[in-house]
Amino acid sequence: MKKEKLNNNSELRQDLVTGDWVIIATGRMKRPEDFSSQNQEDISQKPRSNEDLSQCFFCYPEKTGQKKDVLIYRNSQGEWTLRVFPNKYPILSQEIKLEKREEGPYSAFGGFGFHELIITRDHYRSFALMKTEEVAEVFDAFQERYLTLMKEKNINYISIFHNYGKKAGASIAHPHSQLLAIPVISPYVRLELDGAEKYYQSNQRCVYCNMLKYEQENKSRIVYQNDDFIAFCPFAARSSFEIWVLPKKHMPYFERINDKEKIALAKVFQKSMYALYKALNNPALNFYIHTSPCDGQDYIHYHWHIEIIPRTSTWAGFELETGVEVTALPPEKAAEYLRKALKE
Amino acid sequence: MKKEKLNNNSELRQDLVTGDWVIIATGRMKRPEDFSSQNQEDISQKPRSNEDLSQCFFCYPEKTGQKKDVLIYRNSQGEWTLRVFPNKYPILSQEIKLEKREEGPYSAFGGFGFHELIITRDHYRSFALMKTEEVAEVFDAFQERYLTLMKEKNINYISIFHNYGKKAGASIAHPHSQLLAIPVISPYVRLELDGAEKYYQSNQRCVYCNMLKYEQENKSRIVYQNDDFIAFCPFAARSSFEIWVLPKKHMPYFERINDKEKIALAKVFQKSMYALYKALNNPALNFYIHTSPCDGQDYIHYHWHIEIIPRTSTWAGFELETGVEVTALPPEKAAEYLRKALKE
Repeated sequence: MKKEKLNNNSELRQDLVTGDWVIIATGRMKRPEDFSSQNQEDISQKPRSNEDLSQCFFCYPEKTGQKKDVLIYRNSQGEWTLRVFPNKYPILSQEIKLEKREEGPYSAFGGFGFHELIITRDHYRSFALMKTEEVAEVFDAFQERYLTLMKEKNINYISIFHNYGKKAGASIAHPHSQLLAIPVISPYVRLELDGAEKYYQSNQRCVYCNMLKYEQENKSRIVYQNDDFIAFCPFAARSSFEIWVLPKKHMPYFERINDKEKIALAKVFQKSMYALYKALNNPALNFYIHTSPCDGQDYIHYHWHIEIIPRTSTWAGFELETGVEVTALPPEKAAEYLRKALKE
Repeated sequence: MKKEKLNNNSELRQDLVTGDWVIIATGRMKRPEDFSSQNQEDISQKPRSNEDLSQCFFCYPEKTGQKKDVLIYRNSQGEWTLRVFPNKYPILSQEIKLEKREEGPYSAFGGFGFHELIITRDHYRSFALMKTEEVAEVFDAFQERYLTLMKEKNINYISIFHNYGKKAGASIAHPHSQLLAIPVISPYVRLELDGAEKYYQSNQRCVYCNMLKYEQENKSRIVYQNDDFIAFCPFAARSSFEIWVLPKKHMPYFERINDKEKIALAKVFQKSMYALYKALNNPALNFYIHTSPCDGQDYIHYHWHIEIIPRTSTWAGFELETGVEVTALPPEKAAEYLRKALKE
C-alpha cells in the first residue's frame, strides 16, 4: 500500500533551461539514508555457481508476486520460453493521470506510462550465447508489445532497452529487457530526428543510408553483416567498442520489421553480442532501440537502429559537463579486434 | 616515445547525425585487451590508513616525472599549497595541430587543446573538509588559468571539472580538479546557451535569475545561501541530491568573479560539499563549472553556475538511450535532508 502511494508521486519534470525531461520516480527508494555510500548493494552480473535459482524473481515470476503476464511464448512442449509482464517497481504507471502541474516558473506532468519487463527463460544464457531463433523471439516480443502500446492514448515514444551487469545498472542478474512507453519524445532521440531531417534537407538523402554506404565500401569498422543488416563501430564512438546495428534498407519504424528481416537482425545482433562477450570477457553493457516516435507525425527521414554500449569506462565530470565523450580506443581498432574474436 | 606517438593520434570526431563531439584519446590505453572486464582495476576513493604517500603522484609531483608547474601557490612558510601542471596523460594536447580531416561523409579535427591538473596539498582533505580560504584559493587558481588559456588561439570553451571517487571516474585518490581548454563548444553547454537565449526572447529575463527568485521565495529546495551565492537542489534534478550553486547577481562569465564574490562562493560551495559528505557518507561525485564560451561571441543572457552530481545511481540503458534521467528522491526531500546534515 505504501509503495503504491509513493509510486503515485512519480512525475515527469521539465528542465526550464534545456527543455530536457527527468522522471522523479519515488517508488524505487524510500528514505534519504538509502542513498548513503554505505548502503549500496553489490550485485554482480556473473552467475554464481551455488546460486539458489528458486529465489530468482525471473526464473519463477509467479512465485514472487509479479502481476499478470501481458505476453507469454511457449515451446512445443508447452513450457514458457519468454514472458512479458508489468514491472513491479515501475518508474511510470498507467494508473497515474497525465495532469499538468505548475510550480512557479516550472512545469511537470503526472508520471503516466507503461513499464514492462521482457524475460527469457534461461538464467545463465545472455544474448551472446543464444541461438538465432531465440534472439528472433525476443525481437518478436518487442514488436508485439510495441504494436499494442503505440495505440494507447498519450503514448508518444516507446523505449526498449537492456541493462546487462551491475556496471550497466542491472539490479537483477537474470537476463531481462525493459520497455517504457512514455508521453514525451526524449531529448537524445529528438537530437537524432532533427539531425536526420536537417541532413536530408541539405543532402537529399538519409544520413544513416549515407553512413552505411560508406561503411560498406571502407570496411574497417564493420563487425558483421548479412544481406539485410550490418553491425559496425561508429566513426564517432562514445565508448570503446560501441556497436550500431542497422537495417541496410531505409526503414524509419522498427515496428514494421517483417519475419524474414527479424531473423536477419537476430543473426547480426547475436554475432555482435558474441563478439563483445569473447573480446571483452562478458562485459557489462546496455543496448537500446532508437526508432521513430509513435506520436502520429511522419519521420520518413529517420532510420531505426540498435546501439550497443559496453561499459568499458566510467563517465566522469568532463563527459557529464560537456556531453563530449572520451573514447580510448578508435572504432577501427575495436572493430578489427571484434572481427578477430568472431573467427576464434 | 610510444605514448607520445599515440597521443598525436587524438582526434575530435563529430557525430554525423547529431553534431555532437567525441574525443578519441588513444594515449590513455593501448591494447584492446586492456578493456576486458578481467583487467579493470579497482580504485577506491577511501583513504587507506597504511597507504604509502611517498608513492602518490600528487603528494610529490616532482618525484613522479610530471612536467613543469604552470602555477604554484605557497603559504607564508614558502610551502606549496596548490599546484597546476599539464596532465601527463592528456586527452588533448597543444602539440597537435587543429587540422581538419575528412573521411567519406565524416569529419574530424586533430586533438588540439590544453589539459591541466589542479592539485591541493592534503591527500586526505577533500572540499568537504577544507576551510573557506582553501576553497577560495582553488577557485582563484581556476580563474587564473582560465584568464590565461582563454587568450590562446582556437580555444573556444574551457571546461573545469572535478571527479571524486572511483564511481565518479577518478583514477587517483588524491583530490584533484581538471581543466580542459577545447576548440569546440560542447553540446550540453550549447543546449543551455540556446535555452537561456530562447527564454530571454520569450520572457525578457534570464531563466536562471527567474529560477533563483522563485527558489528564494519557495525555500524548499535551498541547501545553503549567503548574500552573493545560493545552493539548491534543482526542480528537474538528474540525480538524487544534485546541487546547483549560482551567483545571485546575473553573471554570464565565471572568469569575471571578484575576490569578495570568490569568498562568498567558497563558503556556499564548501557547505554544499560538506552537506553531501555528511548526508551520504563521503559519496563519489562530480562537479563542474558551466560558463559562457570564450569564443569572442556575446553570451549576455547566460548565467554561470556550478553543478554537483553525487553518483548515487548508475545510469542504465534508459538514461543512455533517451537522456531522460530517472531520479529516485525528489529534490525537495533531498534539500531537506541536506539542510539537516548541516545542522548536525
